[in-house]
Amino acid sequence: MKISQLGGEAALINLIRDKFGAPADTALALSIGDDAALIRCGDSYMVVTTDLLVENTHFRMDINDAYLLGWKSVAVNISDVAAMGGTPTYSFVSIGLPDVDVSVVEKIYEGMYDASTAFGSAIAGGDTVASESDIVINVTQLGTVEQDRAARRNGAKHGDSIIVTNTLGDSLAGLQLLLKYGIDESRRASSFLVERHLKPEPRVWEARAAVETGKVHSMMDLSDGLSSDIAKLCEASNAGARIFADSLPISEDLHIAASRLDSDPITLAATGGEDYELLITCAPADAHTLISAIKKTGSSATIIGEIVDSSAAVLVSSDGCEQPMPSAWKHF
Amino acid sequence: MKISQLGGEAALINLIRDKFGAPADTALALSIGDDAALIRCGDSYMVVTTDLLVENTHFRMDINDAYLLGWKSVAVNISDVAAMGGTPTYSFVSIGLPDVDVSVVEKIYEGMYDASTAFGSAIAGGDTVASESDIVINVTQLGTVEQDRAARRNGAKHGDSIIVTNTLGDSLAGLQLLLKYGIDESRRASSFLVERHLKPEPRVWEARAAVETGKVHSMMDLSDGLSSDIAKLCEASNAGARIFADSLPISEDLHIAASRLDSDPITLAATGGEDYELLITCAPADAHTLISAIKKTGSSATIIGEIVDSSAAVLVSSDGCEQPMPSAWKHF
Repeated sequence: MKISQLGGEAALINLIRDKFGAPADTALALSIGDDAALIRCGDSYMVVTTDLLVENTHFRMDINDAYLLGWKSVAVNISDVAAMGGTPTYSFVSIGLPDVDVSVVEKIYEGMYDASTAFGSAIAGGDTVASESDIVINVTQLGTVEQDRAARRNGAKHGDSIIVTNTLGDSLAGLQLLLKYGIDESRRASSFLVERHLKPEPRVWEARAAVETGKVHSMMDLSDGLSSDIAKLCEASNAGARIFADSLPISEDLHIAASRLDSDPITLAATGGEDYELLITCAPADAHTLISAIKKTGSSATIIGEIVDSSAAVLVSSDGCEQPMPSAWKHF
Repeated sequence: MKISQLGGEAALINLIRDKFGAPADTALALSIGDDAALIRCGDSYMVVTTDLLVENTHFRMDINDAYLLGWKSVAVNISDVAAMGGTPTYSFVSIGLPDVDVSVVEKIYEGMYDASTAFGSAIAGGDTVASESDIVINVTQLGTVEQDRAARRNGAKHGDSIIVTNTLGDSLAGLQLLLKYGIDESRRASSFLVERHLKPEPRVWEARAAVETGKVHSMMDLSDGLSSDIAKLCEASNAGARIFADSLPISEDLHIAASRLDSDPITLAATGGEDYELLITCAPADAHTLISAIKKTGSSATIIGEIVDSSAAVLVSSDGCEQPMPSAWKHF
């Protein structure tokens, strides 16, 4: 049976976790299955996450540039640390490269360096190897979080408000513009959307503000798209969710771009991957406190739904009709 | 300027370290440039190392198998933790795969699981992604070491004895057999040498025995070959080395295979990469204590030379002639 027949990446990760993964214990407070692992380290947890980016699977150099590739490869890992409520500390960068110009490598590392520095992290090690054809980048990001502040996916409770930061779907719209029009025309159409795809901002300060309220029940970052990620949060928390279509925060640029892309803003917002915004649940009475805390960092935060006593996530339209969340859109 | 014109991987790592690497400080006790980084974690150091393996650069599936690939990808990282005197704790495995049979993935993870378990480590996280063509594996290995036991490359002192564990050159001879004769005939010629290449044993217990004597001045693992690795140790320690050709520990199988390979056992031992044995220096008066401690783990240990007040590593033949260490042999 091929990986695709098993059910793809998600099914494979479940198999690996169940057969080969370390069980959580006092030293390993959280193992495979969340945004990051938590390892006891003195009085705190060390947060550990790793992401592998492969050319032509995760990025294409014809619609990207070296600096932004470096930025994004560190930023998406820092986003996983943020999703646990953590503060990023050090990254370890492995890179497989064909015999390219040294200036390309320097540009990639400049992007990594800037993303690290912007969020208080630093590059502390790695590996540099030859690759026959494709560029391959793996970043392992470490962070730290107080034990009583660590946020997990599995804490959502029935009745919780579901909150997201900023706007959704921008990254997918940016990618669709890039694929349809190339980098120059896409930037003219909406540099905001293109930037949202190529240079994501991990929500480190927003996540810290959220966990410091002490009110977060569950949290994760939106890397695979709301419909896919809310399903993961629901599964981990043994709950369901009702997402209100009219509440999804949608940027002005996404509204404008959607028609050019023959697409619908709500579908883009509900399915779009790589937004790297936060998905948070808390008791309804605490939602205002949490939203206020996040707003102080300069980001917005919106209630988009509620956790319910079912096993599915549904999208509720303005007329009250419920339908399954639309399925995630695949890259390339 | 291409990477190859800059001077390849080593020159690139120096450039990255100098321009983009975090400087060591109280939290980051050791940054880029050793076998692993050391991060303060309570009273101990957390050891962090990462290695990227790319198909057709580091391994070829026609002369390998999935289980052994998994074993080796974890084992070489555990070897870096051992080289710091550390005990491995957790590994984080990123894997990029074409749409292969699930049984292949399971075999890879079985090898990883067995290598982890054999040395007290466990798989605590990772990433699984699609790759267009080549298999790509990145392992980030964590470990722990007491602050006063951590071994570095930069502590070699003039007059030190240079010690290696077990025998050298076996892995290179095993690889050369595999490349020349394929897997079946190579195993018939010497399953020992083939195993030394495909299933290296990281010297965790040997390294712990060594550092627990309190006598280690410097230590690293032999991953790139003695001639290349002693040069790194000398550079880090600002010293030179005299390696006695007649003292190099050479296995019976290597002696026999060398003639089939039209090669010379001393050259194989002096240049062969991927032995994953330990290279240790200590005061001459302590060499016996150190060797005895290592022997209790079941491995042998041999004095192969001395650290001297120069800037080069030389190979000294039985007639007293000195020549530069032969240059390392490149894979594939």
